[in-house]
Amino acid sequence: MSSTRKKILVVNDDGITAKGIRSLVKAMLPLGDVTVVAPDRPQSGMGHAVTIHGIIRARAYDMQLDPSLVSYTCSGTPVDAVKLALAHLMDDQPDLIVSGINHGSNSSINVIYSGTMSAAVEGAVEGIPSIGFSLLDWDADADFDASAHYASAIAQHVLERGIPRNTCLNVNIPKGLQKDIRGVKICRQAKAIWKENFEKRTDPMGHDYFWMTGSFHNLDHGEDTDEFALAHNYVSIVPVQHDLTAYHFINELNDWNL
Amino acid sequence: MSSTRKKILVVNDDGITAKGIRSLVKAMLPLGDVTVVAPDRPQSGMGHAVTIHGIIRARAYDMQLDPSLVSYTCSGTPVDAVKLALAHLMDDQPDLIVSGINHGSNSSINVIYSGTMSAAVEGAVEGIPSIGFSLLDWDADADFDASAHYASAIAQHVLERGIPRNTCLNVNIPKGLQKDIRGVKICRQAKAIWKENFEKRTDPMGHDYFWMTGSFHNLDHGEDTDEFALAHNYVSIVPVQHDLTAYHFINELNDWNL
Repeated sequence: MSSTRKKILVVNDDGITAKGIRSLVKAMLPLGDVTVVAPDRPQSGMGHAVTIHGIIRARAYDMQLDPSLVSYTCSGTPVDAVKLALAHLMDDQPDLIVSGINHGSNSSINVIYSGTMSAAVEGAVEGIPSIGFSLLDWDADADFDASAHYASAIAQHVLERGIPRNTCLNVNIPKGLQKDIRGVKICRQAKAIWKENFEKRTDPMGHDYFWMTGSFHNLDHGEDTDEFALAHNYVSIVPVQHDLTAYHFINELNDWNL
Repeated sequence: MSSTRKKILVVNDDGITAKGIRSLVKAMLPLGDVTVVAPDRPQSGMGHAVTIHGIIRARAYDMQLDPSLVSYTCSGTPVDAVKLALAHLMDDQPDLIVSGINHGSNSSINVIYSGTMSAAVEGAVEGIPSIGFSLLDWDADADFDASAHYASAIAQHVLERGIPRNTCLNVNIPKGLQKDIRGVKICRQAKAIWKENFEKRTDPMGHDYFWMTGSFHNLDHGEDTDEFALAHNYVSIVPVQHDLTAYHFINELNDWNL
């Protein structure tokens, strides 16, 4: 193994058997030595959850994609997978962490609920250039060809140029054929919200329970947002950071005289 | 019931039986009509996780604190609890959401892992003034007297003055007696990191598993951070927002010519 080969960690939140992570691994194999640590079952919507009150298991798993590939399942969350990979499973720190390709959008407010993006954010917290990729198609058999093309191109750029510390990229790719995608737009996160509608049902024992359902509402009229880019068939890239301080409110709070 | 009474939702991540939430409810009862929706078991470290692949249950629960108190347990995450409260359990939108009082710090980078703070962030996403409170003491029997004093004072300020939309407050309170706390500082989130050290063990069947352990490292020398304030025995208040866009990197990304 050449020491100049780049080391790439691939994670996701849909689990190791998802079509999206297989596409991402195939896109990364030409770029370096790839290690996969992915949840052993779907972990969508896990946000930045970590397993602090329970145990975590990791097991070697053959994805049958390439003899050079090192891959593990992890019983924990996507963020657990990143932490376990960096602290224990990988001999060296990776040059790049890529997460996805998610089955479904992580644009706009979805970034805070998404296990895919939280894994990328965790990579940035730990000082590793990290990118989350998501395709606007929830289908288990979605067509990831265009996504894989953009994942490869963007990953190569990041490997060459780096990303500022404590920053990662949130990349969303429109559904459809590569020839129909109009290019890439650098965007800000659109202001949007999920309006929940809990569906109440009764179990066979007569007790109530709920399913969370909801509809997505873009509240943002800006043309510089990820929602706008995606609606116009561009790939959206939002640079993401994890300093949540609302600096604009500090001065006023100081006047509260608490 | 007077229609001018404020409506306050209380949530947490340590679960409905935690001492911290009981202290917070007692501090809120004089301020308005209180509804509690809290996890039915500890949900620390759940971040912004939501339950999208499973069911959620809510059950009425008597906290035995006040006849006027309406309280429920929720089988889901802290964010689920907020969503279910707003969409289904409460007749009207609350004027204020308070989360905690957490057993343990949610300063600095902990804000992204914390179920307590994610519940407050979710409140802000949904347009409700929201505050997360955390005491720097993990003990189940911690002394919440000083925390409850500050929770009451800060909640009253927020009820009177409001908070800008899409912003919430992350309040951390030093351990110790109220007389020893030197006041309140408005802060930014310190740059810090958890360095994980996975402890590997072998189960009775001979299979490996891990416990996540770690140590907290403050990487920030600033004197305007929450870590600095807390280390000097001040209550820290960090205003928190959920637009994760790293605006500082947008110009450079546009030069990448992707």
